[in-house]
Amino acid sequence: MSKNYTTAIVGATGAVGQKIIEQLVKRSFPFSTLKLLASKKSAGKQIDIDGKIYTIEEATPEAFEGVDIAFFSAGGSISKALAKEASKRGAIVIDNTSAFRMDPDVPLVVPEVNKYALNEQQGIIANPNCSTIQMVVALEPIRKHYGLSKVIVSTYQAVSGAGAAAIQELTAQSERIIERQPNPEVLPVKSAEKHYPIAGNVIPQIDVFNEDGFTFEEHKMMNETKKIMSLPELSIAATCVRVPVVTGHSESVYIEVDKENVSVSDIKQLLSEAEGIVLQDNPNEQQYPMPYFSEDEDAVFVGRIRKDPSNEYGFHMWIVSDNLLKGAALNSIQIAEALIEEKIL
Amino acid sequence: MSKNYTTAIVGATGAVGQKIIEQLVKRSFPFSTLKLLASKKSAGKQIDIDGKIYTIEEATPEAFEGVDIAFFSAGGSISKALAKEASKRGAIVIDNTSAFRMDPDVPLVVPEVNKYALNEQQGIIANPNCSTIQMVVALEPIRKHYGLSKVIVSTYQAVSGAGAAAIQELTAQSERIIERQPNPEVLPVKSAEKHYPIAGNVIPQIDVFNEDGFTFEEHKMMNETKKIMSLPELSIAATCVRVPVVTGHSESVYIEVDKENVSVSDIKQLLSEAEGIVLQDNPNEQQYPMPYFSEDEDAVFVGRIRKDPSNEYGFHMWIVSDNLLKGAALNSIQIAEALIEEKIL
Repeated sequence: MSKNYTTAIVGATGAVGQKIIEQLVKRSFPFSTLKLLASKKSAGKQIDIDGKIYTIEEATPEAFEGVDIAFFSAGGSISKALAKEASKRGAIVIDNTSAFRMDPDVPLVVPEVNKYALNEQQGIIANPNCSTIQMVVALEPIRKHYGLSKVIVSTYQAVSGAGAAAIQELTAQSERIIERQPNPEVLPVKSAEKHYPIAGNVIPQIDVFNEDGFTFEEHKMMNETKKIMSLPELSIAATCVRVPVVTGHSESVYIEVDKENVSVSDIKQLLSEAEGIVLQDNPNEQQYPMPYFSEDEDAVFVGRIRKDPSNEYGFHMWIVSDNLLKGAALNSIQIAEALIEEKIL
Repeated sequence: MSKNYTTAIVGATGAVGQKIIEQLVKRSFPFSTLKLLASKKSAGKQIDIDGKIYTIEEATPEAFEGVDIAFFSAGGSISKALAKEASKRGAIVIDNTSAFRMDPDVPLVVPEVNKYALNEQQGIIANPNCSTIQMVVALEPIRKHYGLSKVIVSTYQAVSGAGAAAIQELTAQSERIIERQPNPEVLPVKSAEKHYPIAGNVIPQIDVFNEDGFTFEEHKMMNETKKIMSLPELSIAATCVRVPVVTGHSESVYIEVDKENVSVSDIKQLLSEAEGIVLQDNPNEQQYPMPYFSEDEDAVFVGRIRKDPSNEYGFHMWIVSDNLLKGAALNSIQIAEALIEEKIL
């Protein structure tokens, strides 16, 4: 008989926490019991999961006693404070924040790409940034067969990546888009000094700025891609942009491969057979990925694959996925499933 | 005393036609009289311009008798049918459609970039595609000083580029964005078989598809840029995407220059002094271009200029402009103003 796992969710009341619970149930994850942890403020609240009532407990170090696996999605500072406490008590932590992603002792994992890295885990495994995950899923089969030397990506990121307040802000502004009285308070960055409207606008800032003019979101995409794909020398640059979409990140990606004579149909063939990818690429039928139709879907959708007109090694493509699913909750659970499969958990 | 010109507007009732009239008045263009031409259906309608009543006439070959300058923005087929009729009768035609843009006998002009091409005009001058204009305005000072060998652009294009019906579609859908009952009928292409929602979505299709997988909009950007900048060998690729924004096209642009040791501050300095450009590039103050704030502005806004992390010759930037103004009506009138200045008209 297979084992069942005591499973904790830290940040159970947040947007990603809720999606993790939903996915655990949907995918029949073998949990014996669920511990829903959150801030002191939320402690005592009750949540109905699949017909059973659970009471939220405060996330304290002691709450992790007896926990086998803990999903963290309550922000970087909570992860920094509690992830090691959880792992010290025997839990394997799957962390959805950026707290440990670039830590050399912490594997950064997208199962379709680098499941092997799980063998090096020391109690904490990091779940990558949403915009990184969908891109590496699409690029890994290409890297494996044809090599990959260059990536230039421009993103079209949905507001749900900035949390429930950002969704409310977009929805409220959209209803009175003609009045042009947006009263922005959340985007681009809640804690930043200036806020800008998102309905009827696009904002070329996600997260705060680094000194080199790139944002931290852009650095996350660049650094995490190199780490996940084991390509430290990869030439990669990202421009991350928020668009008035609720859920579903889109990416316009230019790549250069190493091998000669690769054709668009070679890449289509490869991606049509790859794990986790749905190829949507038939211009004659106006078929291509769009965020509106990616919501609540598990897959990474890829389309609009074109050969660069000037560079024999260059290709363009369009990648879309639900940023709350494959970009967050789903990938976390797939990491846990891989841990079980590999008998690490 | 300077001359005044008999000025015709073909497509006077359309979105761009209306903007042309507005700009002619605002910029005190020296017209002696205005002839407002449109389809038979609109003939007889009256329009109040700056307190004077004008009656719309049907656009026929004979309507151009005595006209000095004619602005065409009634679609490619009207331009093909009537532009030569107008020029035969002595008018200089400034055509806003794609009908003649790639015709080797027709100059394709953005005055900040290639005003000199006006000297080769033979009665018809083409106004480039909206997304092309703003990009070449931003790139020309760089080309002039540092050379330009490569351009990769991903666009975030507003719906007003697809006409008044597309604006109505976005507005109506936005008001009921939560209901997810968009009933799309206009975008991405009115005449196409399939229509997709634009509120809460982005659509990676503008215009119809070419056999190579690029759309005609993407080909327009690639071919027109080469022609306007006189760079037939330029390596350029475009991905054109419609976003739920009413007015203001945004572009994420990667370029490679020819000269060594060019810095971000060199480029900022150059663009801050360039004609038609407003530099908005101060990350510390969250200052960067956004379409919401570009509406009704004449300038091309440039910001987020960054050096590529891997390529010494590579730079990234973000370019925004009002697609109905510099992208259409304003550029047309600036062409006419340049014709007067150069004593061609």
